[in-house]
Amino acid sequence: MTMEKGRVEAFSDGVIAVAITLLALNLPIPDPSSHGTLARNLGSQWPEFAAFAVSFLTIGIIWINHHATLRRLVGVDHTTLILNLMLLMSVCALPFSTALMAKYLRASGGQHLAAAIYGGSFLVMALFFFALQVHVLRLAPHLARRDLARDARDSILRRNATGLIPYVIATAVAAWSAYVTLIIAGVIAVYYASPPNRPDAPASAPEPAEDREQ
Amino acid sequence: MTMEKGRVEAFSDGVIAVAITLLALNLPIPDPSSHGTLARNLGSQWPEFAAFAVSFLTIGIIWINHHATLRRLVGVDHTTLILNLMLLMSVCALPFSTALMAKYLRASGGQHLAAAIYGGSFLVMALFFFALQVHVLRLAPHLARRDLARDARDSILRRNATGLIPYVIATAVAAWSAYVTLIIAGVIAVYYASPPNRPDAPASAPEPAEDREQ
Amino acid sequence: MTMEKGRVEAFSDGVIAVAITLLALNLPIPDPSSHGTLARNLGSQWPEFAAFAVSFLTIGIIWINHHATLRRLVGVDHTTLILNLMLLMSVCALPFSTALMAKYLRASGGQHLAAAIYGGSFLVMALFFFALQVHVLRLAPHLARRDLARDARDSILRRNATGLIPYVIATAVAAWSAYVTLIIAGVIAVYYASPPNRPDAPASAPEPAEDREQ
Amino acid sequence: MTMEKGRVEAFSDGVIAVAITLLALNLPIPDPSSHGTLARNLGSQWPEFAAFAVSFLTIGIIWINHHATLRRLVGVDHTTLILNLMLLMSVCALPFSTALMAKYLRASGGQHLAAAIYGGSFLVMALFFFALQVHVLRLAPHLARRDLARDARDSILRRNATGLIPYVIATAVAAWSAYVTLIIAGVIAVYYASPPNRPDAPASAPEPAEDREQ
Repeated sequence: MTMEKGRVEAFSDGVIAVAITLLALNLPIPDPSSHGTLARNLGSQWPEFAAFAVSFLTIGIIWINHHATLRRLVGVDHTTLILNLMLLMSVCALPFSTALMAKYLRASGGQHLAAAIYGGSFLVMALFFFALQVHVLRLAPHLARRDLARDARDSILRRNATGLIPYVIATAVAAWSAYVTLIIAGVIAVYYASPPNRPDAPASAPEPAEDREQ
Repeated sequence: MTMEKGRVEAFSDGVIAVAITLLALNLPIPDPSSHGTLARNLGSQWPEFAAFAVSFLTIGIIWINHHATLRRLVGVDHTTLILNLMLLMSVCALPFSTALMAKYLRASGGQHLAAAIYGGSFLVMALFFFALQVHVLRLAPHLARRDLARDARDSILRRNATGLIPYVIATAVAAWSAYVTLIIAGVIAVYYASPPNRPDAPASAPEPAEDREQ
Repeated sequence: MTMEKGRVEAFSDGVIAVAITLLALNLPIPDPSSHGTLARNLGSQWPEFAAFAVSFLTIGIIWINHHATLRRLVGVDHTTLILNLMLLMSVCALPFSTALMAKYLRASGGQHLAAAIYGGSFLVMALFFFALQVHVLRLAPHLARRDLARDARDSILRRNATGLIPYVIATAVAAWSAYVTLIIAGVIAVYYASPPNRPDAPASAPEPAEDREQ
Repeated sequence: MTMEKGRVEAFSDGVIAVAITLLALNLPIPDPSSHGTLARNLGSQWPEFAAFAVSFLTIGIIWINHHATLRRLVGVDHTTLILNLMLLMSVCALPFSTALMAKYLRASGGQHLAAAIYGGSFLVMALFFFALQVHVLRLAPHLARRDLARDARDSILRRNATGLIPYVIATAVAAWSAYVTLIIAGVIAVYYASPPNRPDAPASAPEPAEDREQ
């Protein structure tokens, strides 16, 4: 059972590592023969750099949270594997939605839809993550560590459900301004990356016996 | 021996993780300066999204099955390594056959051949998987766990052989309709991803001593 | 705790492995229909090959050092994870800055800025590495192995701080000559790759109990 | 020490897994709007498919051998890490030399040079592999398992040195025919992939105590 969990971790780490690194493949190199100086051309590509940073940080945080989630498990079942696979599929789609957002942010049309897809892809990822949590903490509770009390499970699920709201907002405001979608996604990433003193800091999660883990 | 198996797992996980993530690289970003709205342009790319989803799910399920297969082994020999390598080669070819299928599905010509290659690439993958199973369960049976009874081995091989049939059909119908090939491949993926209550659910496989595994 | 560190290693290894391999994706294949012989066309691409070799070696050395750093830890906290994520982000940006440098080295304009970005991207990477070291050796010293004496910590930090200087120089001279930036970066990489007999040789680091590690 | 070796394996597995998977990125998808049927267009791309298969098999075999080599070690030093890094750099260059070979095999010019680079890149890889072996078996013999007798070490080195010859030939004949280079590289790959009964079958290597390994 433990080995199985280990391989889920290894595979997930692999997929997330590749997806996060592929983000940088979309950073465009200005054509040396184009008009304008390199400085100006790079400057005009700021949406690419901003979207790269926001998506990189977001995927990184998903990895940290994924990691915290698997630490709480003693085993995995078929549904866990499939929900995890769907989560990974949503992560793999992020380089696409990020590049789409970056390319359309300053285009003459399409930026609202591109931003909605960008925010929406984060939302879908967060939803699969939430589904995974609901499965292992509620529907198949024997998969989680026995010393993880009812209270701790409730609190994790509540935090996860609350975490969906900002992404709903980021997606909804795309109808009004693509820039605001990007800013909200950036603020969410920085919030989760900021130092502890928050109850949901993954590596200092107050769940019982976290430290006794091998 | 155990370490060797561990490294086969690690390498296979790596290759499968990269291949599954590269699938998304082929999702095309519409050109902002092209005719039509972004919505319409994305809509016209539905074959790319459909083929991505089907291939992603299929590779994910192959990973789950690969994982279940290696759990049954106590060691690997040279032939196992080479058959595994051929299996990985067929997995690595999937981003190519997927992109080919997506690009030709609505082209004026070539869609039958593209669909046959798409279905055929899944069939080749399934054939290498079957060959790997035959090797470790029949031809070099000392590689599998001793407590894996004759009956269990027969049943695994029978299920694997049966699993080839849908891919034979998917490949054959390409001569008639590329769309049907895609639909069959999708149905196969969803079938294997659907929740247990099936004897071949990898993570709840009823083989003896599955739970005693470390 | 140990497992957590293990997964940080696995994820970091994955990201660095992908980033280092993606460097080669930017090696351009001359168009067979272009003017000039293949030999001449490949020759004219020497900046690509030089920048590839320098960046590959540099990322490889960062991996070795990252490895030595994690060996000194007994655990990780949220800040470690985030600083490590920022370090990985800077590594992932290297294929971009490497390709930029290669493409502009012999262009009629922009080579000073490209070289400054190239040197600067190494400098940013080294700065995040230094921040990670300061965190685990000074600010959260309980994360490092207890038998790592004050002296050893000071010496590691001193070496890391000193290691920033060549990258500051490489970045600064870009204003004068892009070629010199590339040469300095190459010399730094070769210096760190050259055989031991240096106090900072990662694998023979004289920190106490390094050998007692499991 | 063991952990260090484990991370070298993990990183090497990662780099090799990415490089082997990236090979398939260069399989070109014919343009649906081009002249000729898809079948004819795919057929005309046979050099791409042949070069992909040969390189995939070769990298896969290098992975198997790398694996066998690390199994013989009890530790790694700085030189091992750097030689391993150079070996990985040569592996990462293979997608480039493979694509170059494929693109020029039927071009009107440049195919001799492209084939020499293709054969030469395999030769460089084999040379770094040999250097790694010489280092851990001769120059720093304490890194290898103590129960690996003088005879076994000699025999491994002899086999490795002999294994360089076919690649020297493959590179040399490029001056005469690029096709013969490709064929020789293919024969070498198939030879190493073919089933045991050969003294150098990695997974059944007759070195003492191979089975006692954990």
